[in-house]
Amino acid sequence: MFAEIITVGDELLTGNTVDSNSAFIAQKLTERGFWVRRITTVGDDIEEIKSAVKEALSREPEVLIIAGGLGPTHDDVTMAAVAQALNVGLELREEVIEKIRVFYRGLYEEGVVDDPNLNEARIKMAYLPKGAEVLDNSVGAAPGAYFKYNSTEVFVLPGMPREMRTMLENEVLPRLGKRKFIQEKLLAEITDESKLAPLLNEVLGRFNVKIHSSPKGFGKYIGIIIFGESEEEIKRAKKFMEKRGLRFENV
Amino acid sequence: MFAEIITVGDELLTGNTVDSNSAFIAQKLTERGFWVRRITTVGDDIEEIKSAVKEALSREPEVLIIAGGLGPTHDDVTMAAVAQALNVGLELREEVIEKIRVFYRGLYEEGVVDDPNLNEARIKMAYLPKGAEVLDNSVGAAPGAYFKYNSTEVFVLPGMPREMRTMLENEVLPRLGKRKFIQEKLLAEITDESKLAPLLNEVLGRFNVKIHSSPKGFGKYIGIIIFGESEEEIKRAKKFMEKRGLRFENV
Repeated sequence: MFAEIITVGDELLTGNTVDSNSAFIAQKLTERGFWVRRITTVGDDIEEIKSAVKEALSREPEVLIIAGGLGPTHDDVTMAAVAQALNVGLELREEVIEKIRVFYRGLYEEGVVDDPNLNEARIKMAYLPKGAEVLDNSVGAAPGAYFKYNSTEVFVLPGMPREMRTMLENEVLPRLGKRKFIQEKLLAEITDESKLAPLLNEVLGRFNVKIHSSPKGFGKYIGIIIFGESEEEIKRAKKFMEKRGLRFENV
Repeated sequence: MFAEIITVGDELLTGNTVDSNSAFIAQKLTERGFWVRRITTVGDDIEEIKSAVKEALSREPEVLIIAGGLGPTHDDVTMAAVAQALNVGLELREEVIEKIRVFYRGLYEEGVVDDPNLNEARIKMAYLPKGAEVLDNSVGAAPGAYFKYNSTEVFVLPGMPREMRTMLENEVLPRLGKRKFIQEKLLAEITDESKLAPLLNEVLGRFNVKIHSSPKGFGKYIGIIIFGESEEEIKRAKKFMEKRGLRFENV
């Protein structure tokens, strides 16, 4: 059961913004027991987004989370690109328009925008891919979208961290059901790095676990994350490594 | 002239580490006049890295920078994966071995490692794809690699930020020659977002410039980066937009 993440935004490709969104999403999915296999970042360009989405779907992840490019500005084109990738049109969601109207009325009253009224750009946010479920954005204007494509659950979220995080917690994770994997973080002592590889490979063969090592470096210890379907299986794998002389410190 | 970036590391896919490397590389390439079109992040897995490298090369970027997975630990497999993606073998670089020996001697004297001697894992870092040029790592053990693949200049760098940044400055940028594009950052005042799109599209048609807008939001201003081959062309594009009623503030 693996997942993929696509983040969208020119500001990520110019390096003006560090992509903390993908790390946040990856962390939540990992805690949830998903194996994040790839993160792709593209700009606010319909063709680029479309290709990235098609390529991700072709790898058939269980979950695909797309974040960024849902706003009112001219280059927020993610929903249009996703609709094209799925060969479906965009459809106006009447139920969303009123929320957008209220949101801008609020911004106007706070003096953030000069014009409280709906305009083409603001109404654009009410267009979702045909058949998609609306994901409520309780802290912003643009709603998200959720749909199932073959075996993949696809979630489209805004890129503003506050909105993305709120919606991930409230709209995405509840739809993913309860976690299936358990993870344990450990520090393994290294005296000879070259002895570690064969041991870890043997563990992967003997036990029903996956191992992420992180972070890497030149120290005496290497961080290891063991994923397993049960506490017991992780314990067994850990004991096996200890029997082979690997020393752990819990993190 | 566009560029792509691939970052490698399980810690990026678990969200334990925020990928600041790709933002740093993207910023340097953008300043240099390269259009970063895609950033891909994969784990320390030969097959995943190999696929990402092959896919990037198939899009024929002018520059491809790959960062991460060059260390001594079992899961540092980037050089092996790159070599496979190119269908070339790895070859031991005698000239690198002595540098690695000296580096670990130093770590041993600082008490960072227990064993000053070379071992299989440390020697692994001296293996580079056949035909690649060695990129000197003045602050770490693992050298980088540089080679030309069809029309693409490929650079493979370590993932530790201090090493990656030093090598990007000292080994990569000098090989890219002098910058070809100029960029100007501006803040454009927005009263009606829907008026901005047609104007920017007209500018892209009339002038030899590219426009990144960043960051996005609900404020009265939107950040815009204009790229052009000359100051003059950027000035002309800016004047044109001002004539059409767009107000700018320099950043």
